[in-house]
Amino acid sequence: MGDLHVHSLLVTGANRGIGLELVRQFLGMPSPPAWVFAACRDPKGQRAQELQNLASKHPNLVIIPLEVTDPASIKAAAARVGEHLRGSGLNLLINNAGTAKASSLDAETLENMTQIYTTNTVGPLLLGQAFLPLLKKAAQGIPGSALNCSKAAIINMSSSAGSIEEVFLWNYGQVVSYRCSKAALNMLTKCQSLRYREHGILCAALHPGWVQTDMGGSGSQKPPVRVDESVRGMLKVLSSLSEKDTGTFLDWEGKVVPW
Amino acid sequence: MGDLHVHSLLVTGANRGIGLELVRQFLGMPSPPAWVFAACRDPKGQRAQELQNLASKHPNLVIIPLEVTDPASIKAAAARVGEHLRGSGLNLLINNAGTAKASSLDAETLENMTQIYTTNTVGPLLLGQAFLPLLKKAAQGIPGSALNCSKAAIINMSSSAGSIEEVFLWNYGQVVSYRCSKAALNMLTKCQSLRYREHGILCAALHPGWVQTDMGGSGSQKPPVRVDESVRGMLKVLSSLSEKDTGTFLDWEGKVVPW
Repeated sequence: MGDLHVHSLLVTGANRGIGLELVRQFLGMPSPPAWVFAACRDPKGQRAQELQNLASKHPNLVIIPLEVTDPASIKAAAARVGEHLRGSGLNLLINNAGTAKASSLDAETLENMTQIYTTNTVGPLLLGQAFLPLLKKAAQGIPGSALNCSKAAIINMSSSAGSIEEVFLWNYGQVVSYRCSKAALNMLTKCQSLRYREHGILCAALHPGWVQTDMGGSGSQKPPVRVDESVRGMLKVLSSLSEKDTGTFLDWEGKVVPW
Repeated sequence: MGDLHVHSLLVTGANRGIGLELVRQFLGMPSPPAWVFAACRDPKGQRAQELQNLASKHPNLVIIPLEVTDPASIKAAAARVGEHLRGSGLNLLINNAGTAKASSLDAETLENMTQIYTTNTVGPLLLGQAFLPLLKKAAQGIPGSALNCSKAAIINMSSSAGSIEEVFLWNYGQVVSYRCSKAALNMLTKCQSLRYREHGILCAALHPGWVQTDMGGSGSQKPPVRVDESVRGMLKVLSSLSEKDTGTFLDWEGKVVPW
């Protein structure tokens, strides 16, 4: 397993849950990144309070306004990050922002299907496009052709709920709109890995486990995984990713999840 | 392998390509269905001419107007089919309508992603919901609990291009919007199989092969499979499907396609 030495990264959906914990643990590393860009919809809002507190203590943390369903907002975020980086690239894009709505197959609607897909699948696609020049720049700045997360990578936060083979937690919630969006995100990850390989960018999908967050814990059962455990596991996985792992789907403990 | 004895079926996107050939081959069976409902966007239009010619020769063929991206149109189609069936159920729903747009990953847009997903993924979901009462009725009318296509089934026309494992024909066309929509359709198929099992409805996804249709043959290379071959193969596959096959993804020759 290699070490994770990331000069700069961006995390979407960074104001709470897994996104916020990712920011916290990156900031807490022995040699933390020079730049941690934490993107969220409403940086000034009540729900970004913890992120604001962190930013007041960590000058390397920059909060970026971002609405992942809005192409103009995505472009503006990429421009803003580019300005901060002043000519250096972005090593790591973590597409963590995601949404779900409790619903049975019988009750799914066109509106719900489209809305969840736009946030969970189209957002990561557009973010990959918008940050591609910065990711390419990061890859070019590091010698050697081998792929890894310290060089340049796109990590898409997926879910075993989107594994067509596993259909994780079906009896807990059908959430077909969510499952379809994550299966599609897995396909996007595979396509990104094929397309961006030549630019030296590693792409992978992660399953964070069933985590005690607002999203994971909204039902009657308590999820088994604490958010700090999940994120610690995923950072270990990120540090271990190499050439052979681009285009794969791994869980927070490093096990391959079937498509 | 069993025989395919379908009292009634509906095919979407039935005015050309695979949909039209499905209608033709069902009508040409030794004991053809009592009702073949052929759904298309514009039954009176130029592009439905061949379907109109067929209907003038086959009184068991009924052309149904249907826009699969419009929930109201889907409900109206289900009501119309129900009127024709006068109390009997619908055995087979073939979600064949689909769309694709040539595009590279770099050139995908929010609009394109949403449009393709709405037709290829959300449409089949809404059609399954709208025709569920008729499919349940068909299943209830046939004794025994074993699943098969002569009793009640939803068949979703997918593609190996939507196999995350295979990413079929990547070098021929990236078509990420199409691939994501079909991976999501495969997930939908799995969810439908889990949800509709108790109603006696078999659900499966099919890959028709790389077929010489308007969609398959729009590029520089000629696809290897003729549409009549593909459909003959798929009908053989449909006739062979049983209990164990619900929730699976098979190609036109009956081979399992990895997710």
